[in-house]
Amino acid sequence: MNEKSAKIEPRTLQGFMELLPARQILFNRMEGTVRRVFESFGYLPLDTPVLEHAGVLLAKAGGETEKQIYRFSKGDTDMVMRFDLTVPLAKYVAKNYNELAFPFRRYQIGKVYRGERPQKGRFREFHQCDVDAVGDGKLNVLYDAEMAAVIYAVFSSLRAEFSGSGFPEIKIYISNRKILSGFLTGLGLAEQASGIMGVVDKLKKIGTEKVRAELLELGISEKSVGKIMEFVSLSGTTDELLSKLTAISGTHGLSAGASPRPTEAGSAHVAETSVGRGLAPDGASGNALFFEGVSELAEVVKGIRFFGVPEENFAIDLIIVRGLDYYTGTVYETFLEGFEGIGSICSGGRYDDLAGYYTDKKLPGVGISIGLTRLFDKLSDLLGQKAAAPAATVLVLSPDGATCDACIAATAELRGAGISAQVYLEDAKAKAKFKYADRLNIPYVMIIGEDEKASDTVTLKNMATGEQKEKIPLRLAAEELLSVPGRRLP
Amino acid sequence: MNEKSAKIEPRTLQGFMELLPARQILFNRMEGTVRRVFESFGYLPLDTPVLEHAGVLLAKAGGETEKQIYRFSKGDTDMVMRFDLTVPLAKYVAKNYNELAFPFRRYQIGKVYRGERPQKGRFREFHQCDVDAVGDGKLNVLYDAEMAAVIYAVFSSLRAEFSGSGFPEIKIYISNRKILSGFLTGLGLAEQASGIMGVVDKLKKIGTEKVRAELLELGISEKSVGKIMEFVSLSGTTDELLSKLTAISGTHGLSAGASPRPTEAGSAHVAETSVGRGLAPDGASGNALFFEGVSELAEVVKGIRFFGVPEENFAIDLIIVRGLDYYTGTVYETFLEGFEGIGSICSGGRYDDLAGYYTDKKLPGVGISIGLTRLFDKLSDLLGQKAAAPAATVLVLSPDGATCDACIAATAELRGAGISAQVYLEDAKAKAKFKYADRLNIPYVMIIGEDEKASDTVTLKNMATGEQKEKIPLRLAAEELLSVPGRRLP
Repeated sequence: MNEKSAKIEPRTLQGFMELLPARQILFNRMEGTVRRVFESFGYLPLDTPVLEHAGVLLAKAGGETEKQIYRFSKGDTDMVMRFDLTVPLAKYVAKNYNELAFPFRRYQIGKVYRGERPQKGRFREFHQCDVDAVGDGKLNVLYDAEMAAVIYAVFSSLRAEFSGSGFPEIKIYISNRKILSGFLTGLGLAEQASGIMGVVDKLKKIGTEKVRAELLELGISEKSVGKIMEFVSLSGTTDELLSKLTAISGTHGLSAGASPRPTEAGSAHVAETSVGRGLAPDGASGNALFFEGVSELAEVVKGIRFFGVPEENFAIDLIIVRGLDYYTGTVYETFLEGFEGIGSICSGGRYDDLAGYYTDKKLPGVGISIGLTRLFDKLSDLLGQKAAAPAATVLVLSPDGATCDACIAATAELRGAGISAQVYLEDAKAKAKFKYADRLNIPYVMIIGEDEKASDTVTLKNMATGEQKEKIPLRLAAEELLSVPGRRLP
Repeated sequence: MNEKSAKIEPRTLQGFMELLPARQILFNRMEGTVRRVFESFGYLPLDTPVLEHAGVLLAKAGGETEKQIYRFSKGDTDMVMRFDLTVPLAKYVAKNYNELAFPFRRYQIGKVYRGERPQKGRFREFHQCDVDAVGDGKLNVLYDAEMAAVIYAVFSSLRAEFSGSGFPEIKIYISNRKILSGFLTGLGLAEQASGIMGVVDKLKKIGTEKVRAELLELGISEKSVGKIMEFVSLSGTTDELLSKLTAISGTHGLSAGASPRPTEAGSAHVAETSVGRGLAPDGASGNALFFEGVSELAEVVKGIRFFGVPEENFAIDLIIVRGLDYYTGTVYETFLEGFEGIGSICSGGRYDDLAGYYTDKKLPGVGISIGLTRLFDKLSDLLGQKAAAPAATVLVLSPDGATCDACIAATAELRGAGISAQVYLEDAKAKAKFKYADRLNIPYVMIIGEDEKASDTVTLKNMATGEQKEKIPLRLAAEELLSVPGRRLP
């Protein structure tokens, strides 16, 4: 076997994203923007291990999740690679309970691993960006509102970061699981609630008729299916929907004794609630759970307005229930306008108890998660078109290599001024050096030849326009370079 | 079994660092500083998968490395977790050769995995920060100088970032493997060179006498051992050492025909070379390899000075050979002054061929690596003392919760001004709210009660001094908050 035939093919595993540098720069800009927003809200950073004890991390898992998990042993230790950032958070909070200040606001951006069947757009290694607020025993519902504000801030910051690239607007859809759950309980369908929600969750994907058919297949009566379909079809503005829901609550006495806290949002449009009233002829929806959900939803909407999220960027959508069973209150989904087909890009919700597997402490929380790898995969063509990803703001070069000393000294000064500056040090023809700058999208080339070195000046060429400023002081060149986008330092 | 006894202990794997939030903030500041410096030099970011095909990543591995590797199968796929960032780089460059512009400067910051025997200060999951410049067929030796400049820039930036914390000065030690290798070849010890270098490498750890003894054990003659010991004890300033080495080169004719390129650094102190001359009585050191090493080292020193690295931060040290066999030229080690006991904190070197296992293309390169997890572990007590890690710059609170709306609106405005601002939303006594700020090292608390809300003002309390500015406009408070360190946004 000769050396050539012995080469190993440099392959990357299927389902593992590995980007070329220009794309990686775009990805990092997205990640940096998300991080910046999380930190602007005062969320604390966390970095948990990628590997954990299988027995610890799988406490909660089962079924589909467990099949996808990367699990192996080394020595006596049975380990798994983390498949989300929520279970590690639960472990962390239970472990460090005494060291943390509550409500504990944390964010984590990191890779997670799921050995899914490989298919286009599905990744086995992907970045998640999670934000959670965890209370000690209780957590005010206003934290649920903050989550929507975080989502809005993240995506409006991304739009600003990639302005001109057509980064789409978002819409955040909010509901509260207690509403549909309470409604179903009122219909006497408490035990089938989970199954029904699973079907209703598919409404946008499969349409009204198929949902109706699937509900009938579950053995739900025609009459109940009719009410469910009518309920999930409730429409209107945020305030109209809150009014309709409030009216449904108010039609019949509550099963529990609590009386509704008035909410600004919920009291506005009571006149338009005829649809809502029709839904509760047999007292079905008048139970405490339903009312609690409506009341919380009204509080969340009020809070979202406090946070200044524009009306056009959020809406109530009663059919959002999220697949996961552990959400118990507010739930969120987020869609990119014009890209609804890619599904929710940021989801989450309120849960009653984060770490019940590890501790007796009751730790309710609320959180959201952005699947950054998938989002990037879907948007990178869009972003790549207009968002240049320069390797540096300027490439400094000596035409014949003889003035490398001056070039090196100049880059050091430029860096000191906060400019990303590369120096070309290889022996090559001038043409090759310019081509290098071009391939790396570097917008400026600084030339320091013998003449410039002798006169303590530089020549600055704008690669896009071809314009060249000859023999100017380095200081002037630095001023120009600071005024262009270039490669912004983190 | 009742519920309580069924709790799972929330453990983390041994050898896996998991920090409390205040420490994590410090770690992230270190990482962010390193990243910023790498990007200021125009290095391109790379993010390769944590998991790779075993057959691809283990092409080069063997022995000790292979034993430490996390390797497992899922389905038909034999995988490993990456154990360094160099082999993935080799794979990446071979795979994407046609898409990259050379010299290819890249950096990667990421976790790597080695199942080492657990002991204090050893980690099984740790962050490496790598910088490499890879040439296509050739790579100018000035890139070796740039590496030293990157090391210096990283650590002087860290000193600035943590100023006042006593972050130590560094010293970069440089050599060239060809020098010692050529010297040994001249002594007729070419075949034992690798073993001898392994022993010499331990000089600082085990001392002169033990090294001498170990060399004799290798079967090296008394006379040769004497010469080796004399050689590795050569001392003096950078220029003095270069002169001595140049003199040794010049004593006898070169085996190869090349004549020395004059270097500024190497020509200064020829008069002081009597020690050097005595080392080459039998022409031992007069071979081409030795000369090439000296010549390259002189070029690197010259380049390092071009880059403006201060004289006191670097030195030649002939006994640095690095354990790894693949370094073929310049080698670096970096020590923290006063913390020499923790070993080199940033090492690397020049290699002839990055990706010979994957491609016929000759890809010489030079790179360095910082073991950030270990460095942080060693320094975090030092940094933690003085470097506060606030969760946010300001905590905004409503004394009794009734003015949450105004508090929320204020935080939104503060964030818009680039200030990390948290709002406290839980129902709690005022005292508990201040305690929360205190536990999170938040330096300012902003209070907006009924009076402030009515007068459209805020009260700002400096938590360190207790000073309180009552009922001032939000704009004035924001100005003060922008002028303090607080939590700086990335």
